[in-house]
Amino acid sequence: MENRNVPFFTPFGVGLSSREGTNLKVAIIGASGHGIFVLEGLRRKPNISATLAGLAPGSEGESITALAEACHADGLCPALYEDYRRMLDEQTPDVVAVNPFFCDHEKITLELLERRIHVFAEKPLALTLEGLARLREAYTRSGVHLGCMLNMRYEPALRAAYNAVRSGAVGDVRLVHAQKSYKLGRRPEFFRQRATFGGLIPWVGSHAIDLIASMSGQRFVSVYAAHSTRNNRGHGELEVSASCLFRMSNEVTGTAGIDYLRPSAAPSHEDDRLRVAGTKGVIEVRDRKTILLNSTGVSELEPDASTSLFGDFMDEVQGTGQSLVSTEEAFINTEAALLARQSADSGKIVFF
Amino acid sequence: MENRNVPFFTPFGVGLSSREGTNLKVAIIGASGHGIFVLEGLRRKPNISATLAGLAPGSEGESITALAEACHADGLCPALYEDYRRMLDEQTPDVVAVNPFFCDHEKITLELLERRIHVFAEKPLALTLEGLARLREAYTRSGVHLGCMLNMRYEPALRAAYNAVRSGAVGDVRLVHAQKSYKLGRRPEFFRQRATFGGLIPWVGSHAIDLIASMSGQRFVSVYAAHSTRNNRGHGELEVSASCLFRMSNEVTGTAGIDYLRPSAAPSHEDDRLRVAGTKGVIEVRDRKTILLNSTGVSELEPDASTSLFGDFMDEVQGTGQSLVSTEEAFINTEAALLARQSADSGKIVFF
Repeated sequence: MENRNVPFFTPFGVGLSSREGTNLKVAIIGASGHGIFVLEGLRRKPNISATLAGLAPGSEGESITALAEACHADGLCPALYEDYRRMLDEQTPDVVAVNPFFCDHEKITLELLERRIHVFAEKPLALTLEGLARLREAYTRSGVHLGCMLNMRYEPALRAAYNAVRSGAVGDVRLVHAQKSYKLGRRPEFFRQRATFGGLIPWVGSHAIDLIASMSGQRFVSVYAAHSTRNNRGHGELEVSASCLFRMSNEVTGTAGIDYLRPSAAPSHEDDRLRVAGTKGVIEVRDRKTILLNSTGVSELEPDASTSLFGDFMDEVQGTGQSLVSTEEAFINTEAALLARQSADSGKIVFF
Repeated sequence: MENRNVPFFTPFGVGLSSREGTNLKVAIIGASGHGIFVLEGLRRKPNISATLAGLAPGSEGESITALAEACHADGLCPALYEDYRRMLDEQTPDVVAVNPFFCDHEKITLELLERRIHVFAEKPLALTLEGLARLREAYTRSGVHLGCMLNMRYEPALRAAYNAVRSGAVGDVRLVHAQKSYKLGRRPEFFRQRATFGGLIPWVGSHAIDLIASMSGQRFVSVYAAHSTRNNRGHGELEVSASCLFRMSNEVTGTAGIDYLRPSAAPSHEDDRLRVAGTKGVIEVRDRKTILLNSTGVSELEPDASTSLFGDFMDEVQGTGQSLVSTEEAFINTEAALLARQSADSGKIVFF
């Protein structure tokens, strides 16, 4: 909470002292994904004028208690609703963050786009290709901004890697390997059905897929993937291990290893890694450190925590900045995740 | 050369004082792979009685100068021949190491099997499935031992990982990722043609494939792979990057990243890595260290350098021990490498 301006309270939330634009009303629907990014964004951008006006569940049986408590801990007091439609009608928010059960991302995002409300949506944007196509169409018609919680782009060590790769530090990228490994613990009930959860590859793998696309700068050509529910410790249909191989344009390849196999005794929840090998060097991220190896030898790069995912999205909405993750990239990411899942389900190569 | 007994010279080489069995005559054909393993094995097993009797090229235009010099540096003076058949006739070796241009592995191994000579062959055993089938048949008929230079099984850090995995330290293995990354430098002329080199996946990838098979303890089910010759700095048909995804039995998956992209300024020639994730822990090898993470937290395992690849093969020949890499595993490894190459060439999944 360092460098945070003192908030002033409003009936429905907290306004933050502003240097730019008008006060934007923000609401959150759901508390099953990363609604917390909204709080982080507000905390880290005290110069944006935003009010967290409301919070409501997005799915049948979803609890918002933990997120409401996190709001309070941050000095934010959004009005709490049972029915998000009533919240939208009464609060008329400018921007809504969407993170219900994953099966409801699409439906709620679609409704918001149709209401011409800017959406900050959890990934994957949809759990079916048909749903994704509906979203694309609605987005095109809407004229509003659609952001996506592909937050790894903002992880400071990964962002440093991205900056270096884009500035040519490893030459032309040829191979990317991304690892996502989490502790399983006890996951919520809705993780146990494909219908509500969507699958390990779309949920956890989306981040690895985003790294493969953004680091390589190439288009997806095809994917072959495999996943397994074995040893998921009573988690029903939840896959706990997966591997993907993406062929990209220009004969670049990207692989992803995705699992919930990180031992509970591990020092951190996740073990996210990245390796990008190019014609002039190799860059790696592990343990939140960025290591570049090129013609000048080995160096550690400074993490880049200059902006936040939600902060940048708010800037985009206000016309004063741009998110690192474009809406088009978010659509492509969801498509890639769904096609990888399809490959893993069918055992067949899927072409883009 | 620590702990080495003082050699006594013979007309054709060096005999080592013995505690076991009869003196075995060893010869080397070719100097394009890892004939050096023979020297290492002799150096590390002063108690085996072996004479390095001869050295000859195995391929048209192959130079054996560097290997002959390495022999001399080790105090070994094999008779040098131009024609390996003459060497075989004159020296009648008991064991022959085969490491000519990779296109000649099969032909020479086949000839040795037919002559009933024990063979210590470079991988891949053959560059075609038909050639591999011929070898299998000849091996079955021969009654001799066939070892294979899949030396990563003997890398002390990887061997420590293998011991731990096999003793259940990570529970059931679910995911394996192996990385092989080398500096390209200037490779010999025969690396520039598929016909003589065989491809990046069979040559370098064989090791990653061996790790996937041995660490998982599973059978290969299918493979999807991609490789590319882009940016190979004038090396003709030589691929310099590749990715493979193997589906294994029991829904285990293994991925491999293989490249010649390691920058020349890197502190070591290779950057070999392994990650094995199981139901009870994760084991990793990098920078020649073995790190185990399981319910007791993080620990570094002692490297296991207890025996050597060629030393164990000699024990196997003498009936006093066994190689860590069985002949059957070597056949399966070559098959897997050739099918992965076929997948990369064709863009299709290949089933085992």
